[in-house]
Amino acid sequence: MFLKIMSSLDTQEKIKARAISLFNEHGTGSVSIGRIASEAGISRGHLQYHYANKQELIRAIYQDIAAEVLSNWEGDDKQPTVRHMAEMFVRQFHYVWKYRFLYREMVTLIRVDSELARRIRDNRARRIEAVIKFFRALARNRVLKKLRGEESLRYLVMITWIFCDNWLNFIEIQGNEINSQTLQEGYDHIIEMLYPYLTRQARESIYESYELIRFPQPLT
Amino acid sequence: MFLKIMSSLDTQEKIKARAISLFNEHGTGSVSIGRIASEAGISRGHLQYHYANKQELIRAIYQDIAAEVLSNWEGDDKQPTVRHMAEMFVRQFHYVWKYRFLYREMVTLIRVDSELARRIRDNRARRIEAVIKFFRALARNRVLKKLRGEESLRYLVMITWIFCDNWLNFIEIQGNEINSQTLQEGYDHIIEMLYPYLTRQARESIYESYELIRFPQPLT
Repeated sequence: MFLKIMSSLDTQEKIKARAISLFNEHGTGSVSIGRIASEAGISRGHLQYHYANKQELIRAIYQDIAAEVLSNWEGDDKQPTVRHMAEMFVRQFHYVWKYRFLYREMVTLIRVDSELARRIRDNRARRIEAVIKFFRALARNRVLKKLRGEESLRYLVMITWIFCDNWLNFIEIQGNEINSQTLQEGYDHIIEMLYPYLTRQARESIYESYELIRFPQPLT
Repeated sequence: MFLKIMSSLDTQEKIKARAISLFNEHGTGSVSIGRIASEAGISRGHLQYHYANKQELIRAIYQDIAAEVLSNWEGDDKQPTVRHMAEMFVRQFHYVWKYRFLYREMVTLIRVDSELARRIRDNRARRIEAVIKFFRALARNRVLKKLRGEESLRYLVMITWIFCDNWLNFIEIQGNEINSQTLQEGYDHIIEMLYPYLTRQARESIYESYELIRFPQPLT
């Protein structure tokens, strides 16, 4: 019984991994359930035993992404430093790259699946509040200067958020290759935006935080 | 002969208008050529006499969008004022709303059509340079303070660009209604971002520029 469950989980992991890779390469619209099954080395029927259709499969993948992302964002506000801020941004860029099909097609995907939309909205709302909490902690820890008010802080978080979610899409639309350099440039843009709000000490420690960004894991 | 050409152009306009409206409502993937023809009140064959397939139709629509956008951006750098800056941003939000299918699906669309990708890239490259020119003019006209260098200016333009292209998508993902208020909030975010770089005179004249944003044309 235990072995059977393990093997079933392994199959699901294999299906999801192949699906993510195919969706990233060709888009969710052009990849059929049959093709995913074939590339995962199983029958279509076997795949559909686990996921009845593409919508169910995409929901399952999203559930994994959400769990991965949320687990890593836990307690960010306990480390309100420039170094940790850099780690957060670079981590976010990595997620956007790893699950790029989701960030490219998000609006389309949520328009055709209201249950997926609900999950994405709930998770984003929680994460946005977590980032706002982190920025407040940065202000308390004198990384950020005193802002003009709670609304200013919220606006800065939104701009940073929209930028992080869309920087790699932007590069792709420009027709440029995405590599470690691209992530560094994305980070440079964020720093440029936050620069007027950084304290003198924070500006000085930006250079330390660079080490993190120059050597990301290779993008695959 | 002249009448026939006119009528042919009218038909094309009608097809494109129906297609834009259907694409905005349902996404390009779910709308067939047959459905567009039917809603435009012509036969599928008649539509295909003008546009052989959906790809050709999308390219033709994009050509119109590009012409409309480029014609309006001509000479922006001749009016380097806060008021004109506000007009530019609000205009851009209107385009993103009017042709929202394009902004929602851009990465997917360019991945499946390299000719469309080439056109989008060329136009964006020209427009980005035009906005950089406009920001330089703002700096010369003491609307923007002296920036830390040419790279800073370029980075600010990129962040603003990415924000404008994706603000309405972001609101849609949040599940909120898009209306005149949404455009105003988008503008508020941009002003928040630029605030540290605005001169005292520019900050004072922001309030004038608000009149423009509080009364946009109704969003349809």
